[in-house]
Amino acid sequence: MKYGIIGTGAIGGYYGGKLAKSGQDVHFLFHSDYDYVKKNGLQIDSCDGSFHIDHVNAYHTTTEMPPCDVVLVCLKSTNNHLLPEMLRPLLHLHTLVVLIQNGIGVESDLQQLFPDLQLAAGLAFICSAKTEPGRVSHQCYGQINFGNFSCRDEHLFQQLLDDFNAAGVEAGAVDYQEARWKKAVWNMPFNGMTVALNTQTDLLLKQPATRRLIRDLMMEVVGAARHLGVEALDDTFVDKMIEMTDNMTPYSPSMKLDYDFHRQMEIHYIYSRPIEIACEAGYRMPKLEMLEAELRFLQSGYLPESK
Amino acid sequence: MKYGIIGTGAIGGYYGGKLAKSGQDVHFLFHSDYDYVKKNGLQIDSCDGSFHIDHVNAYHTTTEMPPCDVVLVCLKSTNNHLLPEMLRPLLHLHTLVVLIQNGIGVESDLQQLFPDLQLAAGLAFICSAKTEPGRVSHQCYGQINFGNFSCRDEHLFQQLLDDFNAAGVEAGAVDYQEARWKKAVWNMPFNGMTVALNTQTDLLLKQPATRRLIRDLMMEVVGAARHLGVEALDDTFVDKMIEMTDNMTPYSPSMKLDYDFHRQMEIHYIYSRPIEIACEAGYRMPKLEMLEAELRFLQSGYLPESK
Repeated sequence: MKYGIIGTGAIGGYYGGKLAKSGQDVHFLFHSDYDYVKKNGLQIDSCDGSFHIDHVNAYHTTTEMPPCDVVLVCLKSTNNHLLPEMLRPLLHLHTLVVLIQNGIGVESDLQQLFPDLQLAAGLAFICSAKTEPGRVSHQCYGQINFGNFSCRDEHLFQQLLDDFNAAGVEAGAVDYQEARWKKAVWNMPFNGMTVALNTQTDLLLKQPATRRLIRDLMMEVVGAARHLGVEALDDTFVDKMIEMTDNMTPYSPSMKLDYDFHRQMEIHYIYSRPIEIACEAGYRMPKLEMLEAELRFLQSGYLPESK
Repeated sequence: MKYGIIGTGAIGGYYGGKLAKSGQDVHFLFHSDYDYVKKNGLQIDSCDGSFHIDHVNAYHTTTEMPPCDVVLVCLKSTNNHLLPEMLRPLLHLHTLVVLIQNGIGVESDLQQLFPDLQLAAGLAFICSAKTEPGRVSHQCYGQINFGNFSCRDEHLFQQLLDDFNAAGVEAGAVDYQEARWKKAVWNMPFNGMTVALNTQTDLLLKQPATRRLIRDLMMEVVGAARHLGVEALDDTFVDKMIEMTDNMTPYSPSMKLDYDFHRQMEIHYIYSRPIEIACEAGYRMPKLEMLEAELRFLQSGYLPESK
């Protein structure tokens, strides 16, 4: 199959690299690393075995790329306004676009613009970072789950799973809604609260007041999800998420890193859209509404122009 | 009448000073300023005319003070755990204790410990500061409203008003519940949010997201108050409070100053008690619950021992 990778960073570089190494025909879009990779190739340092791709199908714009069977979108969702124009050259009648992104509503927003496009969610469980130009460091985990949003071609969806597994990446199929909302149960409380209180996951759980608050925030997400028909979520899942975080090393989620480096935060898809989607269905998330407002205020302190 | 002043700072110094100057028999409790005032007296610099009290009835502990007809409590509510022991020597059978303090629930908590004590709330509208030992600077305003909580002696309550007015302080009687909750409509949103986002009132209202949030928080207070039977509060009052704040100079509320100087914040009476009182009556204030938790977290960063 012909794969396109939009956004070859920590995630796109790793999964695209694994697919390319396993023999798939992979085409990578690069931003700042283009010249370096064109000349030197792509290096993946991995806990499962490092490797180098000497000749990378590297592109600087998607207009030069061929139409692909599967496109993996690994951009931060803050760039999704660029996506329609970037994607267009890559699409043929049966292309499947997989959004490996944070948040809720990314697929449905894109579907509005491309009503016939086949879409899936990619939910990656991976610790990976881009350490220097053309170099990805994969520290641990690596599995990815795919949730079918609007892929009509069951064979193509299965082929995607098979290709990942054949490339040495554990890949499974999950219920779309359930998977996106399960991730939100952790993401919505911890991403924003580490920013709002300028701290890390462990300290939020150490203080009794914020430990209760984290639980309240998680229960708001569970409440919204259940209201939208995701019945697999309940308070035992919340307890499990808190216990898991208790056992994690002190952690700064991606939004905290964006805040620390004064980059735009993924407020829209991690907060505004899920709040809006739940609200339209008649369910309010008051504490998460408040967190969203606090994040917008904090971001306006260093990015006055951002929405 | 014999007046006792517990906590002779910016507020107690001003009102006690005015009463003493008008000829009332006023007895002042001092903490750090005791020696200075005993020797040098008390200086009130005031926009309405400065004056000096040469011979101050100054005390270092209440055990040396005489029983009083009216006791004005001008302590920060973070010290209210000391109040029962401090008050006892000042009380006779008909003493009226006036709590000139922030928050909700201060009178009812004290009433639990002294079931027969006559209590009133003092709601001061004043810009005043203690500038150096034995010296209070009164910049503007100065009026005070009294809300009767449990004063059975109408004559005594009226005498209090008359004495203040005779001393040149505009004093009126207000409905107790209505007055405490009206103050909370401003206090609960602005005190905490300026701390949580480390900012001032004007910037919170400038950002659309936090302007909406401030309104939401105010509406939670109005909702609680109405649920508790205070019908004079509604959304027009909220609009008035926001408009008033728009017209104020950029302002740091008392809690922000406490936070900046790493002092204990009045979280208990400004947040926890009103949230609890409303909750017991069946009304939840979710965004203010979240703000309370954030404040407790932030305070624990510099006062690990505080509750």
